[in-house]
Amino acid sequence: MSAADGVLLADWGTTNLRAWRLDRVGKVAARADFALGVARLTPGEAAARFESEVRPALAAQDLPALLCGMIGSTLGWTLAPYVDCPASLESLAEGLSSPAPGVRIVPGLRGPGLIGPDVMRGEETQILGWLAADPARLSGVHTLCLPGTHAKWVRVEEGRLIRFVTAMTGELYDLLGAQSVLRFAGPPGPIDLVAFDAGVAAAADGGALAARLFGLRGLTLNGGLAAEAAPSWLSGLLIGAEIAALQPGFATRTGAAVHLIGATRLCGLYARALAAKDVSCEIADGEEAVLAGLTRIWSAIA
Amino acid sequence: MSAADGVLLADWGTTNLRAWRLDRVGKVAARADFALGVARLTPGEAAARFESEVRPALAAQDLPALLCGMIGSTLGWTLAPYVDCPASLESLAEGLSSPAPGVRIVPGLRGPGLIGPDVMRGEETQILGWLAADPARLSGVHTLCLPGTHAKWVRVEEGRLIRFVTAMTGELYDLLGAQSVLRFAGPPGPIDLVAFDAGVAAAADGGALAARLFGLRGLTLNGGLAAEAAPSWLSGLLIGAEIAALQPGFATRTGAAVHLIGATRLCGLYARALAAKDVSCEIADGEEAVLAGLTRIWSAIA
Repeated sequence: MSAADGVLLADWGTTNLRAWRLDRVGKVAARADFALGVARLTPGEAAARFESEVRPALAAQDLPALLCGMIGSTLGWTLAPYVDCPASLESLAEGLSSPAPGVRIVPGLRGPGLIGPDVMRGEETQILGWLAADPARLSGVHTLCLPGTHAKWVRVEEGRLIRFVTAMTGELYDLLGAQSVLRFAGPPGPIDLVAFDAGVAAAADGGALAARLFGLRGLTLNGGLAAEAAPSWLSGLLIGAEIAALQPGFATRTGAAVHLIGATRLCGLYARALAAKDVSCEIADGEEAVLAGLTRIWSAIA
Repeated sequence: MSAADGVLLADWGTTNLRAWRLDRVGKVAARADFALGVARLTPGEAAARFESEVRPALAAQDLPALLCGMIGSTLGWTLAPYVDCPASLESLAEGLSSPAPGVRIVPGLRGPGLIGPDVMRGEETQILGWLAADPARLSGVHTLCLPGTHAKWVRVEEGRLIRFVTAMTGELYDLLGAQSVLRFAGPPGPIDLVAFDAGVAAAADGGALAARLFGLRGLTLNGGLAAEAAPSWLSGLLIGAEIAALQPGFATRTGAAVHLIGATRLCGLYARALAAKDVSCEIADGEEAVLAGLTRIWSAIA
């Protein structure tokens, strides 16, 4: 087969791998998820497991492949060197690495950050997909937020990724809920919106986080917050603190929406916390965005 | 034996137990440490281990005992109900619980906190000890800071504990260094003061902590910070953020010192971070303070 027969695209992250086979006209012909994130790989086994597990599952043994995400880090297949901000479809496509014949990896992105260089791997591809979904997005100035383990706030201008800042909001939630004095009594249930809103309100200006976090202990011991509501309150506090600290610096103009890209449920919580600050937003699905981004890069080089 | 023969005093915390036997004139006749913190106790075994391990090691089988710390929590021997701020030697002594004949436990302290009720167990005894060490401390207004896993900032007025706020600075340092994307490559070595100072400076106004934390990853990947210096930078960032967020609200008047009570090395780092903000401080040893506090409470009730 050749490139004209289709392509294997994959978002290969820290915990999961999601892959698609596109047919010769660019239509999704197969899709599969694998619990094969780079954190689960032993050193040097990425190539073998890609060949023996991913390609067969998608009936894509001989197709060219384009991968993005942490697979391009030192933990992954090969180090795909960072491209610097400001970055574009063109500079990211030029920065592709090839760890094996017919396999290409999207570079990560490096930018000035808040207190030093900041980095992303995978989100740059989602952003290219978001840009590709509507030609109007290629002009003007936009604020994007990609919630998650390492949430990204990104400034896009005239189709280029100008700067970004990462907040480890999701990782703090997971760590604190699992192992700290604030650890949850059991798996979090459905979100309690009253507790979530109270957490957002407690975040105030985004400061004194280490003290506001301990406030949760006082609230559950003596403040009338039910233990089952603690995960929702913690989520609200951390998301509220992130928004209070970062949204103002990324705001483009009064009334401009924040474009949220990610999982629907998490984006919904960010939208709620943003609404509490009178900031509107639009939500784009993260899986659709990464597939669109990989497709866009592929079409630029194929 | 009776109370006139001496007393067994103990600071029984989450991870360790430190005990002293005072003789009949109040002099320390024995001292011992035990890796027997309440986190290591199975439910209900505090009494038996106290009798079988602690009392014999101090040759204090029949002496009255006074304990403080997490042993008074639901994880410990018995729940010693909180005393509320404002609190004094008298109200804390009146609030003693007795889980067994001849054994008394100092109550914890509850105050208004930053966003709801805040709590401490053990630090109130250190503060009574600090007050007892110098009669001049019983008048006027003082700002105290007790660094640690759950650092406390405390306002003392006319010998009474008025209000306090807890920051989980030490616990965040331990969690992030052990298990997050920022985890250390190995055990932290000696403090790197240049990296510590850079972390303090990066804390700025105490805001955007989740983003500034991720900044450490960028600094080590692309910003020229050596991996061995990362623990010192993280310590500086977290201590700096705590001080930036809490010290202003506890300042009494221009030029007034912060009284640090705790382990010498950690207090030294707080003193350095405070000096960077032109705040002076005085350091008191935490072990001496808790022994003096237990002694003071005992002399009030014996």
